[in-house]
Amino acid sequence: MQTFEHDTMEGILFTDMYQLTMAQVYFRAGQHERGAHFEHFFRDYPNYGAHQAGYCISAGLEWLLNWMRNAHFRDEDIAYLRSLTGRTGRRMFEDDFLTWLRANGSFEGISLRAIPEGRVVHPNVPLTSVQGPLAMAQILETALLNHVNFQTLVATKAARIHESGRGRPVLEFGLRRAQGKGGNAGTRAALIGGADFSSNVGVSQVLGYPPKGTHAHSLVQIFTSLGLGELEAFRAYADMYPDDCTLLVDTIDTLHSGVPNAIRIFEELRRKGHEAIGVRLDSGDLAYLSIQVAKMLDEAGFPLASIVLSNDLDELIIWQIITQIREEAPRYGVDADKLICRLVYGVGTRLITSAGDPALGGVYKLVAVQADGSWVPAIKISESPEKTPNPANKKAWRIYDRRGKATADLLSLEDEDPRQMKRVMLRHPSDHTKYRLLADNEVSEIEPLLVDVLREGKLVYDLPSLDAMREQRKADVSRLDPGVRRLVNPHVYHVSLTQRLWDLKQGMIGTALQQSR
Amino acid sequence: MQTFEHDTMEGILFTDMYQLTMAQVYFRAGQHERGAHFEHFFRDYPNYGAHQAGYCISAGLEWLLNWMRNAHFRDEDIAYLRSLTGRTGRRMFEDDFLTWLRANGSFEGISLRAIPEGRVVHPNVPLTSVQGPLAMAQILETALLNHVNFQTLVATKAARIHESGRGRPVLEFGLRRAQGKGGNAGTRAALIGGADFSSNVGVSQVLGYPPKGTHAHSLVQIFTSLGLGELEAFRAYADMYPDDCTLLVDTIDTLHSGVPNAIRIFEELRRKGHEAIGVRLDSGDLAYLSIQVAKMLDEAGFPLASIVLSNDLDELIIWQIITQIREEAPRYGVDADKLICRLVYGVGTRLITSAGDPALGGVYKLVAVQADGSWVPAIKISESPEKTPNPANKKAWRIYDRRGKATADLLSLEDEDPRQMKRVMLRHPSDHTKYRLLADNEVSEIEPLLVDVLREGKLVYDLPSLDAMREQRKADVSRLDPGVRRLVNPHVYHVSLTQRLWDLKQGMIGTALQQSR
Repeated sequence: MQTFEHDTMEGILFTDMYQLTMAQVYFRAGQHERGAHFEHFFRDYPNYGAHQAGYCISAGLEWLLNWMRNAHFRDEDIAYLRSLTGRTGRRMFEDDFLTWLRANGSFEGISLRAIPEGRVVHPNVPLTSVQGPLAMAQILETALLNHVNFQTLVATKAARIHESGRGRPVLEFGLRRAQGKGGNAGTRAALIGGADFSSNVGVSQVLGYPPKGTHAHSLVQIFTSLGLGELEAFRAYADMYPDDCTLLVDTIDTLHSGVPNAIRIFEELRRKGHEAIGVRLDSGDLAYLSIQVAKMLDEAGFPLASIVLSNDLDELIIWQIITQIREEAPRYGVDADKLICRLVYGVGTRLITSAGDPALGGVYKLVAVQADGSWVPAIKISESPEKTPNPANKKAWRIYDRRGKATADLLSLEDEDPRQMKRVMLRHPSDHTKYRLLADNEVSEIEPLLVDVLREGKLVYDLPSLDAMREQRKADVSRLDPGVRRLVNPHVYHVSLTQRLWDLKQGMIGTALQQSR
Repeated sequence: MQTFEHDTMEGILFTDMYQLTMAQVYFRAGQHERGAHFEHFFRDYPNYGAHQAGYCISAGLEWLLNWMRNAHFRDEDIAYLRSLTGRTGRRMFEDDFLTWLRANGSFEGISLRAIPEGRVVHPNVPLTSVQGPLAMAQILETALLNHVNFQTLVATKAARIHESGRGRPVLEFGLRRAQGKGGNAGTRAALIGGADFSSNVGVSQVLGYPPKGTHAHSLVQIFTSLGLGELEAFRAYADMYPDDCTLLVDTIDTLHSGVPNAIRIFEELRRKGHEAIGVRLDSGDLAYLSIQVAKMLDEAGFPLASIVLSNDLDELIIWQIITQIREEAPRYGVDADKLICRLVYGVGTRLITSAGDPALGGVYKLVAVQADGSWVPAIKISESPEKTPNPANKKAWRIYDRRGKATADLLSLEDEDPRQMKRVMLRHPSDHTKYRLLADNEVSEIEPLLVDVLREGKLVYDLPSLDAMREQRKADVSRLDPGVRRLVNPHVYHVSLTQRLWDLKQGMIGTALQQSR
């Protein structure tokens, strides 16, 4: 692919056509530089069918910012837009608009607040909150949704897999089944959310994480085809990587060929002063096999050798494997807990695609417009009340109970600070019968969630390292109630409105309904 | 993102770590330049849960070739690999291997055959067939699978959506819910498979397709917030695009506000000599609403105005909408067939993510190695017979019956030509009780499927245009039996082996089993 194609496909035209046609309508109406405020949020946690997320992990912001920094309308982009015609041959974009776009078509006027990457996030709370000139704030929508939706989706899946694996290492192996170059974003998100390392070399380099891997069946197959066999393949691999030797034992027959050959090689390594890492199982009944393999490794004197499991794993399958090990291991004289503590999970397809729910339905909604220097709240009424977005410039807060567990996220008006309130009223976003009054002695902490990231295009935020994002994620997940952390049928976490925001919303709904009648 | 990061993440290191560690083992064993033959194929059609594909559409080849042309080990890549260490601090890659990789680490030695993009393809038939020096043929695996798996997956979904829409236009709208930059590959695949246009501007430019779109709810919302309302928003849009005017009518109330306002604008346009395209519905009961909207448009004198439907559509939902229209339209005095012929489908999330089955399980398997100048077949025995790959250099053929319908794909040895056979024996790939003997008078045509694409790195194939791929897809789908084309529970298409290939495979399985005992 030529460079021009990359630059074209991944620059400012990485957007939907209607963003540009709408921008021109705003231009013609003289509204293109009017201040507009959009919020990006998702309405529902991923639902994987047999299991559902009770929280998400935010991710994607830094790559969005990178994209925004470089994206602007180049001469080539303008020339292309100039060439586009409608069905009667009339040009779609007129010269005055294109001239404006060439001069002003960057994100230098955008101010952006966001919940940092790696944080636990919930429905209807803005992950990003964008203020800026209407035309460019509109044009930003597609790329913003693309970056943050996908990475949040995959980080969430990774957090679940990390949870189900009881904190044992998770290796991300998904590139071959990933969505083109999107695999790189997926790997990054997986690392933020809970994977510990990835097999993806390029993105590991960029992120500063060492890439990891074992070997494939093809290594054994090649040696077998050359008349050398599995043992020689293992020996060649061990000679090359004596201190980093993990052998894939299921190419021929796990228990009768792979493991005995691996043990022989591990013994050879030990005689030379090296200790193998372990073995990998990639097929069959992984719970049963890991019990048998653990037994064989123990008896051969390798009680610390890891057992890497792979083959279409996800959080539910890992959970099932662990449950099965707990039930069956004692029957074979294997200590289940010790075995679980030597497992490592290689997770590919089902992580990088968020199998079961492959998209996060994040949306980007207008919440206010600027008029005469002040912000006027905007609303869009939906036929289902829970889909009506919350209007106005807002702040988002997390409230921790006396145990230090997060008990609710609270949306307030911009000028409200629940830390100053004696009692905090939590209103359900759409059901007027549901509310909760929290006295300040029921609350251990109230934390603002949104940070200033861009102020008129200028970065005013210290981007955290990936390690810091991972630490943040661990801390946030540990402050969730165990019911919310459940892999299946989690408790519903409360996202509430302050009384004043509730009143504003209801008032606007009433007015809008009156007008539309 | 800096350019170096793009180049790093999307160049030759867009691969799995173990490809590189295995390559070094081959190097140390003196096998890195031995000829190896790998095949890429998938084992199962996508299964979306409530529905299943009966065929796939191949896609991704050209972008893979672009990647291969540019990917090579640059000094920076070598320096990075040199910096990697294992857990004891020992370097992972040694100097002699890195020197070889710097000098030889490109795909110039690779020969590649493939089934062209846009063709109907089936399980176990190689989509690509790769011969070349072992180390580089191995390193190619990840990127090859990434490109061809994902685009084939999405092209397949698009073909199904095209089928369910009865050939009415399909617009691809998925970028905001797509997988990072993978959205571009997804859009391309959607266009090959059955979408007619995309909203994705950048990739539309690169592919030479005009990007399409209507407008978003935010246009109406902005005008409403400014005190101008839906009618003014529509008027502004229509003034700007008088010949390309599609209005989104569900922001406030479809039947009581959106459609009456749209009709008023359409009348204004007509008075000025322009004809509107139509309206878009993005929420609610789309079948019911489209009947009512058709009725209103008809009565207002716009019987040809299109009705664009969107909102989490996929092939099954489109099928349900059409079924419901057929049942309900007559009740309202609306001609169902005429209505169906004015529908247009905007399909986003569920197309670009292949909702229901978000990954194609394509694999890359060694089928032969070169020894003393000739190719020796290789095999990998699996515990499930149907997972044992078919060994040896092969050709792939499509056999058409007397009706001109494809009746089977046939894998043969390299030196076989079923066109020369009086009778063709079709053996099931793993079940010895299943076979079929075709006399030549039962066959109307036998067509080779694989074309030479790269010969030792040199492109020897005229890459078809996207239009040609689309034509090929239409032709191939029309030559499928209707049972295979079904959206739900399709008939199983036969993929068979010649008698000689069957014999070779069984002989190799027998030998391998004997050796492993």
